Amino acid sequence: MMLKPLAATLVALTMMDAAVGAADAPLQITRAGSRAVNAGPAQWFTGEVKVEMLYTPSGAERTSAGSVTFSPGARTNWHSHPLGQTLIVTAGVGRVQQWGGAVQEIRAGDVVHIPPEVKHWHGAAPGSAMTHIAVQEAQDGKTADWLEAVSEVQYGPAAVPVGAPFSAYTPPTD
Amino acid sequence: MMLKPLAATLVALTMMDAAVGAADAPLQITRAGSRAVNAGPAQWFTGEVKVEMLYTPSGAERTSAGSVTFSPGARTNWHSHPLGQTLIVTAGVGRVQQWGGAVQEIRAGDVVHIPPEVKHWHGAAPGSAMTHIAVQEAQDGKTADWLEAVSEVQYGPAAVPVGAPFSAYTPPTD
Repeated sequence: MMLKPLAATLVALTMMDAAVGAADAPLQITRAGSRAVNAGPAQWFTGEVKVEMLYTPSGAERTSAGSVTFSPGARTNWHSHPLGQTLIVTAGVGRVQQWGGAVQEIRAGDVVHIPPEVKHWHGAAPGSAMTHIAVQEAQDGKTADWLEAVSEVQYGPAAVPVGAPFSAYTPPTD
Repeated sequence: MMLKPLAATLVALTMMDAAVGAADAPLQITRAGSRAVNAGPAQWFTGEVKVEMLYTPSGAERTSAGSVTFSPGARTNWHSHPLGQTLIVTAGVGRVQQWGGAVQEIRAGDVVHIPPEVKHWHGAAPGSAMTHIAVQEAQDGKTADWLEAVSEVQYGPAAVPVGAPFSAYTPPTD
């Protein structure tokens, strides 16, 4: 019957894959300016947000990394990550808040870690863009659970001057 | 007997831990300039290397991130990572090589991905420092398998001028 040669070919291909192995996989370099930059989708972000993926995992890996630039006032929706996230601020001034906590200012060189399942948002300051590298692990292929938008009241006072000390701001709860 | 109250206390503490849960864990911010910077150990590196850990995982997480600065000519030993590594070049000019491949130049903004188990090294160019953020996943608590130092011949010609186009260099094999 005709199926035998096809089955034999599939088995041979599978064995070849196993024989090649990860140790022979090519090291990959993507050059500055060569990667796609996409708008952050409106159902997950408020304002202008640009997302440049730096790496997406394959095989046994589960970590992805992207550079995200928020225009002044732009921010994520509230969301959480099944296995957490680390934000490395590379430019500008921004804000981050954990549900029930104060809005905190973040600046270039600061690093934020959001533990698994913690509801939070992050974004730019009202008068400054902010860029961070975001590193997160996927659980069953999923890196985030997206929730509602961050309201103007939650985002906090727009009058804080860029460069001035920012007192942590806890939005009114009523 | 005296053990009963202690046992009861331990059980109560365990239950409290479970009740708190990850969703209540605090978001952590480390500020620019506040993190420890350590010399890269001589058994793993050639030349002056500074390592600033940005985040180390806990609980179910397995991803760590660090900023590593190589002085001109400095480099890692040959090594591999059980679950791969992503290098995000943030400053300067450097070099990277996979075992059996060409030495390739990397510059600020370039991103290198090293697949799991691939033997490789990375470091600065002969005439320029290089800084990269390194992101890697731990497997059973281990992020790297360290091997022999990169010889001067393997490192490649020192005469390539900084800023000049760098032709990929394959070291002699005999």
